[in-house]
Amino acid sequence: MSGHVAVLGAGSWGTAFAKILADAGRDVTLWARREAVAASMKAERRNPEYLPGLVLPDRVTATGDAQEAITGAEVVVLAVPSQTLRGNLTGWIPHLHPDATLVSLMKGIELGTTKRMSEVVMETARVPADRVVVVSGPNLAPEVVAEQPAATVVACTDVDRATLVQRAITTSYFRPYTNDDVIGCELGGAVKNVIALAYGIATAMGFGHNTRAMLVTRGLAETARLGVALGADPLTFAGLAGMGDLVASCSSPSARNRTFGEHLGRGATLEEARIATRQTAEGVKSALAIRDLARAHEVEMPITEQVELVCHEGVDPRRAVAALMSRTTKPE
Amino acid sequence: MSGHVAVLGAGSWGTAFAKILADAGRDVTLWARREAVAASMKAERRNPEYLPGLVLPDRVTATGDAQEAITGAEVVVLAVPSQTLRGNLTGWIPHLHPDATLVSLMKGIELGTTKRMSEVVMETARVPADRVVVVSGPNLAPEVVAEQPAATVVACTDVDRATLVQRAITTSYFRPYTNDDVIGCELGGAVKNVIALAYGIATAMGFGHNTRAMLVTRGLAETARLGVALGADPLTFAGLAGMGDLVASCSSPSARNRTFGEHLGRGATLEEARIATRQTAEGVKSALAIRDLARAHEVEMPITEQVELVCHEGVDPRRAVAALMSRTTKPE
Repeated sequence: MSGHVAVLGAGSWGTAFAKILADAGRDVTLWARREAVAASMKAERRNPEYLPGLVLPDRVTATGDAQEAITGAEVVVLAVPSQTLRGNLTGWIPHLHPDATLVSLMKGIELGTTKRMSEVVMETARVPADRVVVVSGPNLAPEVVAEQPAATVVACTDVDRATLVQRAITTSYFRPYTNDDVIGCELGGAVKNVIALAYGIATAMGFGHNTRAMLVTRGLAETARLGVALGADPLTFAGLAGMGDLVASCSSPSARNRTFGEHLGRGATLEEARIATRQTAEGVKSALAIRDLARAHEVEMPITEQVELVCHEGVDPRRAVAALMSRTTKPE
Repeated sequence: MSGHVAVLGAGSWGTAFAKILADAGRDVTLWARREAVAASMKAERRNPEYLPGLVLPDRVTATGDAQEAITGAEVVVLAVPSQTLRGNLTGWIPHLHPDATLVSLMKGIELGTTKRMSEVVMETARVPADRVVVVSGPNLAPEVVAEQPAATVVACTDVDRATLVQRAITTSYFRPYTNDDVIGCELGGAVKNVIALAYGIATAMGFGHNTRAMLVTRGLAETARLGVALGADPLTFAGLAGMGDLVASCSSPSARNRTFGEHLGRGATLEEARIATRQTAEGVKSALAIRDLARAHEVEMPITEQVELVCHEGVDPRRAVAALMSRTTKPE
């Protein structure tokens, strides 16, 4: 192995993560799916569509060729849209070094299979759990790129593997903590996107801070309920990958799922919200998968249920939030 | 007993609470310490200094005479500044009905004794724990008065007493949940004020949402550590009286402790912040008492320690936050 790190996916978090690795002293090859993005990063050292403020560090090499990025990489960071992971990874397997550490930055649940991203990685790449590392925390990419102090969680069943990744991403502004609760960290990140959509809807409808704080608290409670049913440590949800990530995503007016939810809360259709934000927020797809996962484990997730109804069943968000409010204010 | 409820203290939360009680169908006598406030409430049905938007419901009788309010009251709600509770209550004891339920709305720790408000009530009024009820949650008074949906926690060691108060304050927009963890609910509310000061300081210094989410998460973690040392249930801190209250107080730009902290973060002295906000934020005094309580129980509370240094030892807030940031990003 040459020891370089491959970052596969040049969206905002993949690109920011490449900067972190480079600032921590690693050589990085950053793959962009779209040729135009790769070309702009090569020629101008910028990724203006996702992170207009950033100039890529010298240690980052951009490419449009995934094989070039993966070949010889000691650490392979996966930062593609959640629902494309299985398809992408299937094509990349032949190039993976047999000892490579696979790092997931993705916060989603696969539709149909209801699998977490680390499960999709293990199944597709046929690697054991101790080869897969999850990084999750309150890490809004534009703020990380601006070198605002942030912390994150590096989760792996193998502590040594987690420590290896922790070292590779420790900088003066970015501090990773290791954790062995992969399930809790992944669920915290995935469900957060759904709760942030609900938060955005409630914000656009004019609900105040008391109501929204109640929504966030109940949202974390339903996340933890699902987590415990799946074998997570309930304390993980009180930490950076649970409460921390949720609070950051709900409190930033520019965070993607919140913003998408605000469009829905103002009465936009899913399609109109997509056009206005130029993307589909991760929580839109995850809501369906998380609802299925919750039903399969007989866990009540009223906020996720309502978000799913709004996104996929055409229910008026005002009706959904009203249903939620009357429900969440019912004595337990 | 006449069955009326006395609310002692006509600040923003005491006044809002009187409205809740009235809307729930109770007759309320609301006592204001200052004659001018009592007179304005009597003559114009308004308390413009604290809640300019409110017109007092008909069931609320305003008075400047505490004895008038207390005599015959079945439920006595205490809503005075924390550090004045012992002195005020001492004068009120002769008028208290021997079976009255005492409800604390106060979120502070007594200086010198490091006692929680319910402890001060028990000690001063010589009543057992089952007579004292604590109400705490994400309840910014102006939003409650605007009838934005909100939930709260009603805590008492005696479930029947908690249920009595729960019924007295249940309205279409305000939903109380009962809980028997008095210690956890009180600590959640008291330490929240200190963390919200830190949040305000960090906000004014330009820290972003990642950094502030880390601060909130660490703040709740140190609150829970102290709580567990004092006998609280750690799960209380994940609920409305813990995370919920903290999130509401940090996310609202007009919440008092956050606003006070913002003045400090912009370089104002304690005195200048006091003048600008026309009050001393509750967390300023509590920081000292909570720090003493933490030291007595050998619990590390780095955020509280730094807030205390800024408020009472003249440490530059920029230095304190810098110390905190370097500390809170250290691996655990």
